[in-house]
Amino acid sequence: MTSSTNQQILLKTRPVGEPKESDFALVENPIPEPGEGEVLNRTIYLSLDPYMRGRMSDRESYVAPVELASVMVGGTVSQVIKSNHPQFSTGDFVLGYDGWQAYAVSKGETLRKLDPNQAPISYALGITGMPGMTAYFALLDVGQPKAGETVVVSAASGAVGSIVGQIAKIKGCRAVGVAGSDAKCDYAVKELGFDACINRKTQELSSALKDACPNGIDIYFDNTAGAILEAVLQQINLGARIPLVGLISQYNAENPPPGPNLMPLLIKRALIKGFLVLDYQHRQTEFLNDVSQWLREGKLKYKEDIVEGLENASHAFIGLLQGKNFGKLIVKVNNDPTQ
Amino acid sequence: MTSSTNQQILLKTRPVGEPKESDFALVENPIPEPGEGEVLNRTIYLSLDPYMRGRMSDRESYVAPVELASVMVGGTVSQVIKSNHPQFSTGDFVLGYDGWQAYAVSKGETLRKLDPNQAPISYALGITGMPGMTAYFALLDVGQPKAGETVVVSAASGAVGSIVGQIAKIKGCRAVGVAGSDAKCDYAVKELGFDACINRKTQELSSALKDACPNGIDIYFDNTAGAILEAVLQQINLGARIPLVGLISQYNAENPPPGPNLMPLLIKRALIKGFLVLDYQHRQTEFLNDVSQWLREGKLKYKEDIVEGLENASHAFIGLLQGKNFGKLIVKVNNDPTQ
Repeated sequence: MTSSTNQQILLKTRPVGEPKESDFALVENPIPEPGEGEVLNRTIYLSLDPYMRGRMSDRESYVAPVELASVMVGGTVSQVIKSNHPQFSTGDFVLGYDGWQAYAVSKGETLRKLDPNQAPISYALGITGMPGMTAYFALLDVGQPKAGETVVVSAASGAVGSIVGQIAKIKGCRAVGVAGSDAKCDYAVKELGFDACINRKTQELSSALKDACPNGIDIYFDNTAGAILEAVLQQINLGARIPLVGLISQYNAENPPPGPNLMPLLIKRALIKGFLVLDYQHRQTEFLNDVSQWLREGKLKYKEDIVEGLENASHAFIGLLQGKNFGKLIVKVNNDPTQ
Repeated sequence: MTSSTNQQILLKTRPVGEPKESDFALVENPIPEPGEGEVLNRTIYLSLDPYMRGRMSDRESYVAPVELASVMVGGTVSQVIKSNHPQFSTGDFVLGYDGWQAYAVSKGETLRKLDPNQAPISYALGITGMPGMTAYFALLDVGQPKAGETVVVSAASGAVGSIVGQIAKIKGCRAVGVAGSDAKCDYAVKELGFDACINRKTQELSSALKDACPNGIDIYFDNTAGAILEAVLQQINLGARIPLVGLISQYNAENPPPGPNLMPLLIKRALIKGFLVLDYQHRQTEFLNDVSQWLREGKLKYKEDIVEGLENASHAFIGLLQGKNFGKLIVKVNNDPTQ
């Protein structure tokens, strides 16, 4: 790669089942020139998130799929290196949606300026960004936690789950995680302050949930669906709330698998509600105020799993869907000048 | 049966799968004597409802099961024939929960007096009773219908569904029913004013729903779960609401079958919420005011399917779970002196 070359990862083929590295293509192209009102960004960090699996398929969803031979989409933290937009100057750090590439031209309107003195710039892809907002609004708005209630969250050490459990504790709830390894569970309990965490690979879910939730389950923050949701439904309390935020367990399924039997919802007058963070963009300030304060007060901890080099993005993404990451997964695409 | 003999139907064995007539036992016992604060009722009408199937099993539910060798539970309209309670006199008509028997002693506190001049007394088991309240509150409170939206309801000619569709029309919605025969569908459309009705036995659900709901589905009032819920989920609109009121399709299942894949809930930010009418007892007046007025104005129509004789209750109940009834199913246990 020369200084005038852009590295990009394209979607080559639509995966059947688990994505393979051969579904992606790493290509080199000239770095583009920004037009009027546009800026040229150098990507520093690329966020990898489970929702991207959905964009690789052409099933109906809430947004259009990535087209074949196009750059994979994704949130990015970048530095502006050329600007034709009055609000951005060379050297500015910005949050954008530039995708899996080393350089990108963006319209200024789609960028948010970041202050590197407030928090590490990469946090904008996690705790102060989309995963943080997802945790915050799905838990507080749909879940409506009350002190003393029990909150269960799946993918508990992940970008969203780790924040959910900590906010549950801030709100006076019992926080119980479900994660895929002892190391992740230890982290949730010892570092993040969860009351308990279940290793879904070594423990029998139903009895482990019973032990961990002696007063039943009032809120289940569902990142995964599948077997965990099914086991949780057997132990929900009257009026339980289940924000359905992700279905990681089935993102690689060729055909949508059946869901849980819904009788417990009726018996317990409970609700499952689908949640997408994009509906909450207009309430970002509210979120940032709370989360920034909690970070300053040390009430929120945050762990990143940083992969070096865009060429490793597809491998890391495949691992993400298998739960191999530990903390918020991001790719360091170019040097971070703030470090 | 002599004039001093009480006919009762007991739960003899817990059914496996579909209930059989041999799961019930018709017995004769002396008519009981009311104690202090109690009244003796002669049952006129017994309500048969799908929820009774749940009471026959000892699976966990929101209430205890009927014990073996005990009288089957059920709502009743009766006449007081002896009273030791200051608020009831011989000859009064009352709504109670006396179960599958010709005579019963009740505590006065559990009875509601009925005025035979306001409406046929049997209506208290249907349109002005529990099924009516279920339709009213699950549609209006959980469903939150807005004029112009599309409401789909399963078991559309039944006690609850027939009222749901009519209230949907009163609220300015498009009402689409799903029912089990052409006769039921004709009734829903031609008599009750539904905009369309799908015969789930002869029509392919997905394409029929697409035809009947050109603007998608905003509310699905679910009496049945199963295949209808699954097909509906593929066509819900953004922010759809699904009151889950019954799971008739699985009441006879030995093991709870899987439910639908829940991905559409996330994509459409929709909700499924379990509903039990007993949570709404404190709002009965609100319901009665509206429904009585709609009945007077001719905006609500109501059809009863009356079976003669307590000895035919178990046969009729088995047919109810198979969709053989047409209209609200009640058993005429003794003569109705108001007719």
